[in-house]
Amino acid sequence: MFKIFYEDIELDHTDIIGTVQASKEDIVRFATEFDPQPFHLDDEFAKSTPFGGLCASGWHTCSLIMRAMVDYVLATGLASLGSPGLQTLQWRKPFFPNDTLSVSIKTVKKTDSRSRPEIGFVTSEITATNQNGDIVLFMINDMMTARRKPLET
Amino acid sequence: MFKIFYEDIELDHTDIIGTVQASKEDIVRFATEFDPQPFHLDDEFAKSTPFGGLCASGWHTCSLIMRAMVDYVLATGLASLGSPGLQTLQWRKPFFPNDTLSVSIKTVKKTDSRSRPEIGFVTSEITATNQNGDIVLFMINDMMTARRKPLET
Repeated sequence: MFKIFYEDIELDHTDIIGTVQASKEDIVRFATEFDPQPFHLDDEFAKSTPFGGLCASGWHTCSLIMRAMVDYVLATGLASLGSPGLQTLQWRKPFFPNDTLSVSIKTVKKTDSRSRPEIGFVTSEITATNQNGDIVLFMINDMMTARRKPLET
Repeated sequence: MFKIFYEDIELDHTDIIGTVQASKEDIVRFATEFDPQPFHLDDEFAKSTPFGGLCASGWHTCSLIMRAMVDYVLATGLASLGSPGLQTLQWRKPFFPNDTLSVSIKTVKKTDSRSRPEIGFVTSEITATNQNGDIVLFMINDMMTARRKPLET
Protein backbone atom coordinates (compact mmCIF):
# COMPACT_ATOMS: atom_id res chain seq x y z
CA MET A 1 0.00 0.00 0.00
CA PHE A 2 3.00 2.34 0.42
CA LYS A 3 4.03 4.01 -2.84
CA ILE A 4 6.13 7.02 -1.84
CA PHE A 5 9.10 6.17 0.39
CA TYR A 6 11.74 8.21 2.20
CA GLU A 7 14.10 7.98 -0.79
CA ASP A 8 11.42 9.41 -3.11
CA ILE A 9 10.76 12.58 -1.13
CA GLU A 10 12.18 15.76 -2.66
CA LEU A 11 13.30 18.69 -0.55
CA ASP A 12 11.70 22.13 -0.92
CA HIS A 13 8.68 20.59 -2.57
CA THR A 14 5.27 22.02 -1.65
CA ASP A 15 2.05 20.01 -1.94
CA ILE A 16 -1.52 21.06 -1.34
CA ILE A 17 -2.99 18.70 1.26
CA GLY A 18 -6.59 19.85 1.05
CA THR A 19 -9.03 22.21 2.70
CA VAL A 20 -10.51 22.32 6.19
CA GLN A 21 -13.79 23.79 7.45
CA ALA A 22 -15.80 23.70 10.67
CA SER A 23 -19.34 24.83 11.39
CA LYS A 24 -20.23 26.73 14.54
CA GLU A 25 -21.85 23.51 15.81
CA ASP A 26 -18.62 21.55 15.18
CA ILE A 27 -16.59 24.20 17.00
CA VAL A 28 -18.89 24.29 20.03
CA ARG A 29 -19.08 20.49 20.20
CA PHE A 30 -15.28 20.06 20.19
CA ALA A 31 -14.78 22.91 22.66
CA THR A 32 -17.47 21.60 25.01
CA GLU A 33 -15.57 18.32 25.29
CA PHE A 34 -11.95 19.47 25.21
CA ASP A 35 -11.51 23.24 25.49
CA PRO A 36 -14.48 24.94 27.20
CA GLN A 37 -13.04 28.45 27.20
CA PRO A 38 -15.81 30.99 26.66
CA PHE A 39 -14.42 32.37 23.36
CA HIS A 40 -14.91 28.89 21.85
CA LEU A 41 -18.48 28.54 23.17
CA ASP A 42 -20.22 31.90 23.42
CA ASP A 43 -20.60 34.21 20.44
CA GLU A 44 -21.45 37.32 22.46
CA PHE A 45 -18.58 36.85 24.90
CA ALA A 46 -16.14 36.14 22.07
CA LYS A 47 -16.99 39.47 20.42
CA SER A 48 -15.64 41.26 23.52
CA THR A 49 -12.25 39.51 23.28
CA PRO A 50 -9.29 40.18 20.96
CA PHE A 51 -10.48 37.19 18.86
CA GLY A 52 -13.45 39.29 17.74
CA GLY A 53 -15.85 36.36 17.53
CA LEU A 54 -16.41 32.71 18.35
CA CYS A 55 -13.48 30.68 17.02
CA ALA A 56 -12.24 27.12 17.09
CA SER A 57 -10.02 25.65 19.77
CA GLY A 58 -6.48 25.53 18.45
CA TRP A 59 -6.54 21.79 19.12
CA HIS A 60 -9.63 21.45 16.97
CA THR A 61 -7.79 23.19 14.13
CA CYS A 62 -4.84 20.82 14.60
CA SER A 63 -7.15 17.80 14.64
CA LEU A 64 -8.93 18.85 11.45
CA ILE A 65 -5.59 19.44 9.72
CA MET A 66 -4.50 16.00 10.91
CA ARG A 67 -7.56 14.51 9.26
CA ALA A 68 -6.70 16.26 5.99
CA MET A 69 -3.13 14.95 6.29
CA VAL A 70 -4.22 11.38 6.91
CA ASP A 71 -6.52 11.51 3.89
CA TYR A 72 -3.62 12.89 1.83
CA VAL A 73 -1.22 10.21 3.07
CA LEU A 74 -3.71 7.44 2.28
CA ALA A 75 -4.51 8.91 -1.14
CA THR A 76 -0.87 9.32 -2.18
CA GLY A 77 0.57 6.18 -0.55
CA LEU A 78 3.13 8.17 1.44
CA ALA A 79 4.98 5.73 3.71
CA SER A 80 4.19 7.64 6.91
CA LEU A 81 4.77 5.86 10.21
CA GLY A 82 3.59 8.63 12.53
CA SER A 83 5.29 11.57 14.16
CA PRO A 84 7.39 11.94 17.31
CA GLY A 85 6.33 15.57 17.57
CA LEU A 86 6.48 19.14 16.39
CA GLN A 87 9.32 21.64 16.50
CA THR A 88 6.90 24.54 16.66
CA LEU A 89 3.15 25.14 16.56
CA GLN A 90 1.77 28.64 16.00
CA TRP A 91 -1.88 29.63 16.16
CA ARG A 92 -1.48 32.93 14.35
CA LYS A 93 -5.08 33.98 13.64
CA PRO A 94 -8.50 32.80 14.81
CA PHE A 95 -10.25 30.07 12.83
CA PHE A 96 -13.88 31.17 12.54
CA PRO A 97 -16.96 29.10 11.64
CA ASN A 98 -17.17 28.38 7.91
CA ASP A 99 -13.71 29.75 7.15
CA THR A 100 -11.97 27.64 4.53
CA LEU A 101 -8.38 26.80 5.37
CA SER A 102 -6.09 25.66 2.57
CA VAL A 103 -3.44 23.36 3.99
CA SER A 104 -0.06 22.97 2.33
CA ILE A 105 3.04 20.99 3.25
CA LYS A 106 6.61 21.87 2.29
CA THR A 107 9.45 19.41 2.87
CA VAL A 108 12.44 21.18 4.40
CA LYS A 109 14.79 18.51 5.76
CA LYS A 110 15.49 14.79 5.61
CA THR A 111 17.40 13.06 8.40
CA ASP A 112 18.47 9.41 8.49
CA SER A 113 17.49 7.64 11.69
CA ARG A 114 20.52 6.77 13.79
CA SER A 115 18.85 3.83 15.50
CA ARG A 116 16.41 2.49 12.87
CA PRO A 117 17.92 1.89 9.38
CA GLU A 118 14.47 1.16 7.93
CA ILE A 119 13.15 4.71 8.49
CA GLY A 120 14.07 8.35 8.05
CA PHE A 121 12.66 11.59 9.41
CA VAL A 122 11.09 14.09 7.05
CA THR A 123 10.74 17.60 8.48
CA SER A 124 7.93 19.62 6.91
CA GLU A 125 6.38 23.04 7.29
CA ILE A 126 2.61 22.82 7.39
CA THR A 127 0.68 26.01 6.73
CA ALA A 128 -3.09 26.59 6.93
CA THR A 129 -4.21 29.75 5.16
CA ASN A 130 -7.76 31.15 5.26
CA GLN A 131 -9.83 32.53 2.39
CA ASN A 132 -8.43 36.04 3.07
CA GLY A 133 -4.85 34.89 2.66
CA ASP A 134 -4.07 35.02 6.40
CA ILE A 135 -1.97 32.23 7.86
CA VAL A 136 -4.11 30.77 10.65
CA LEU A 137 -1.78 27.96 11.69
CA PHE A 138 1.87 27.14 11.07
CA MET A 139 3.75 24.12 12.33
CA ILE A 140 6.99 22.29 11.74
CA ASN A 141 6.46 18.56 11.91
CA ASP A 142 8.85 15.60 11.95
CA MET A 143 7.43 12.52 10.29
CA MET A 144 8.84 9.02 10.48
CA THR A 145 8.88 7.66 6.94
CA ALA A 146 9.65 4.12 5.79
CA ARG A 147 12.61 3.62 3.46
CA ARG A 148 12.30 1.58 0.31
CA LYS A 149 15.52 -0.17 1.31
CA PRO A 150 17.05 -0.11 4.80
CA LEU A 151 20.10 2.11 5.10
CA GLU A 152 23.33 0.09 5.02
CA THR A 153 25.48 0.93 8.01
CA MET B 1 -13.32 35.78 38.18
CA PHE B 2 -9.55 36.11 37.66
CA LYS B 3 -7.57 35.61 40.87
CA ILE B 4 -4.01 34.81 39.78
CA PHE B 5 -2.46 37.41 37.47
CA TYR B 6 0.81 37.67 35.58
CA GLU B 7 2.47 39.47 38.49
CA ASP B 8 1.53 36.63 40.87
CA ILE B 9 3.13 33.83 38.88
CA GLU B 10 6.38 32.47 40.32
CA LEU B 11 9.12 31.04 38.14
CA ASP B 12 10.28 27.43 38.52
CA HIS B 13 7.07 26.55 40.28
CA THR B 14 5.49 23.17 39.45
CA ASP B 15 1.79 22.48 39.86
CA ILE B 16 -0.16 19.28 39.33
CA ILE B 17 -2.91 20.01 36.83
CA GLY B 18 -4.78 16.73 37.11
CA THR B 19 -5.03 13.33 35.51
CA VAL B 20 -6.14 12.21 32.07
CA GLN B 21 -7.59 8.90 30.88
CA ALA B 22 -9.22 7.57 27.72
CA SER B 23 -11.10 4.33 27.10
CA LYS B 24 -10.56 2.29 23.96
CA GLU B 25 -13.95 3.55 22.75
CA ASP B 26 -12.88 7.19 23.32
CA ILE B 27 -9.65 6.58 21.41
CA VAL B 28 -11.37 4.94 18.46
CA ARG B 29 -14.09 7.60 18.33
CA PHE B 30 -11.59 10.49 18.23
CA ALA B 31 -9.36 8.71 15.71
CA THR B 32 -12.29 7.82 13.46
CA GLU B 33 -13.12 11.52 13.16
CA PHE B 34 -9.67 13.11 13.12
CA ASP B 35 -6.81 10.63 12.79
CA PRO B 36 -7.88 7.36 11.16
CA GLN B 37 -4.46 5.74 11.07
CA PRO B 38 -4.76 2.00 11.68
CA PHE B 39 -2.71 1.95 14.92
CA HIS B 40 -5.38 4.19 16.49
CA LEU B 41 -8.28 2.03 15.29
CA ASP B 42 -7.29 -1.62 15.03
CA ASP B 43 -5.93 -3.55 18.01
CA GLU B 44 -4.51 -6.43 15.97
CA PHE B 45 -2.78 -4.17 13.43
CA ALA B 46 -1.39 -1.96 16.20
CA LYS B 47 0.27 -4.98 17.85
CA SER B 48 2.38 -5.41 14.70
CA THR B 49 3.70 -1.83 14.86
CA PRO B 50 6.40 -0.28 17.07
CA PHE B 51 3.58 1.12 19.25
CA GLY B 52 2.83 -2.42 20.44
CA GLY B 53 -0.91 -1.88 20.73
CA LEU B 54 -3.80 0.41 19.97
CA CYS B 55 -2.99 3.90 21.25
CA ALA B 56 -4.48 7.39 21.17
CA SER B 57 -3.91 9.93 18.43
CA GLY B 58 -1.35 12.43 19.65
CA TRP B 59 -3.95 15.14 19.01
CA HIS B 60 -6.39 13.32 21.26
CA THR B 61 -3.78 13.31 24.03
CA CYS B 62 -3.22 17.05 23.50
CA SER B 63 -6.97 17.72 23.56
CA LEU B 64 -7.48 15.77 26.79
CA ILE B 65 -4.57 17.61 28.43
CA MET B 66 -6.12 20.87 27.23
CA ARG B 67 -9.35 19.94 28.99
CA ALA B 68 -7.43 19.25 32.22
CA MET B 69 -5.69 22.63 31.83
CA VAL B 70 -8.93 24.51 31.27
CA ASP B 71 -10.45 22.89 34.37
CA TYR B 72 -7.32 23.86 36.32
CA VAL B 73 -7.40 27.45 35.05
CA LEU B 74 -11.09 27.81 35.93
CA ALA B 75 -10.58 26.22 39.37
CA THR B 76 -7.60 28.39 40.28
CA GLY B 77 -8.72 31.66 38.65
CA LEU B 78 -5.53 31.90 36.57
CA ALA B 79 -5.89 34.92 34.27
CA SER B 80 -5.28 32.93 31.08
CA LEU B 81 -6.15 34.61 27.78
CA GLY B 82 -5.21 31.75 25.47
CA SER B 83 -2.02 30.71 23.75
CA PRO B 84 -0.30 31.83 20.55
CA GLY B 85 1.37 28.44 20.27
CA LEU B 86 3.92 25.91 21.42
CA GLN B 87 7.70 25.99 21.18
CA THR B 88 7.87 22.22 21.08
CA LEU B 89 5.54 19.24 21.28
CA GLN B 90 6.88 15.74 21.83
CA TRP B 91 4.86 12.53 21.76
CA ARG B 92 7.46 10.39 23.52
CA LYS B 93 5.53 7.21 24.33
CA PRO B 94 2.17 5.74 23.28
CA PHE B 95 -0.91 6.60 25.36
CA PHE B 96 -2.82 3.33 25.73
CA PRO B 97 -6.45 2.79 26.73
CA ASN B 98 -6.99 3.22 30.46
CA ASP B 99 -3.50 4.56 31.11
CA THR B 100 -3.57 7.33 33.70
CA LEU B 101 -1.51 10.36 32.77
CA SER B 102 -0.53 12.78 35.53
CA VAL B 103 -0.17 16.23 34.05
CA SER B 104 2.11 18.82 35.61
CA ILE B 105 3.02 22.37 34.63
CA LYS B 106 6.27 24.15 35.46
CA THR B 107 6.69 27.87 34.83
CA VAL B 108 10.04 28.56 33.20
CA LYS B 109 9.94 32.11 31.81
CA LYS B 110 7.92 35.34 31.98
CA THR B 111 8.08 37.86 29.16
CA ASP B 112 6.40 41.27 29.06
CA SER B 113 4.38 41.88 25.92
CA ARG B 114 5.98 44.55 23.74
CA SER B 115 2.69 45.57 22.14
CA ARG B 116 0.08 44.95 24.83
CA PRO B 117 0.87 46.44 28.29
CA GLU B 118 -2.12 44.66 29.85
CA ILE B 119 -0.71 41.14 29.29
CA GLY B 120 2.44 39.08 29.65
CA PHE B 121 3.56 35.74 28.29
CA VAL B 122 4.18 32.85 30.67
CA THR B 123 6.24 30.03 29.22
CA SER B 124 5.59 26.65 30.83
CA GLU B 125 6.75 23.07 30.45
CA ILE B 126 3.82 20.68 30.49
CA THR B 127 4.58 17.03 31.16
CA ALA B 128 2.19 14.07 31.06
CA THR B 129 3.55 10.99 32.84
CA ASN B 130 1.89 7.57 32.81
CA GLN B 131 1.38 5.18 35.72
CA ASN B 132 4.75 3.53 34.97
CA GLY B 133 6.63 6.81 35.30
CA ASP B 134 7.18 7.19 31.54
CA ILE B 135 6.80 10.66 30.04
CA VAL B 136 4.16 10.24 27.34
CA LEU B 137 3.94 13.89 26.25
CA PHE B 138 6.10 16.96 26.77
CA MET B 139 5.39 20.45 25.50
CA ILE B 140 6.56 24.00 26.00
CA ASN B 141 3.63 26.38 25.89
CA ASP B 142 3.39 30.18 25.81
CA MET B 143 0.31 31.50 27.58
CA MET B 144 -1.02 35.03 27.36
CA THR B 145 -1.81 36.09 30.92
CA ALA B 146 -3.60 39.23 32.09
CA ARG B 147 -1.69 41.62 34.34
CA ARG B 148 -3.23 42.95 37.53
CA LYS B 149 -2.06 46.41 36.45
CA PRO B 150 -0.99 47.37 32.92
CA LEU B 151 2.76 47.78 32.51
CA GLU B 152 3.76 51.46 32.50
CA THR B 153 5.80 52.24 29.43
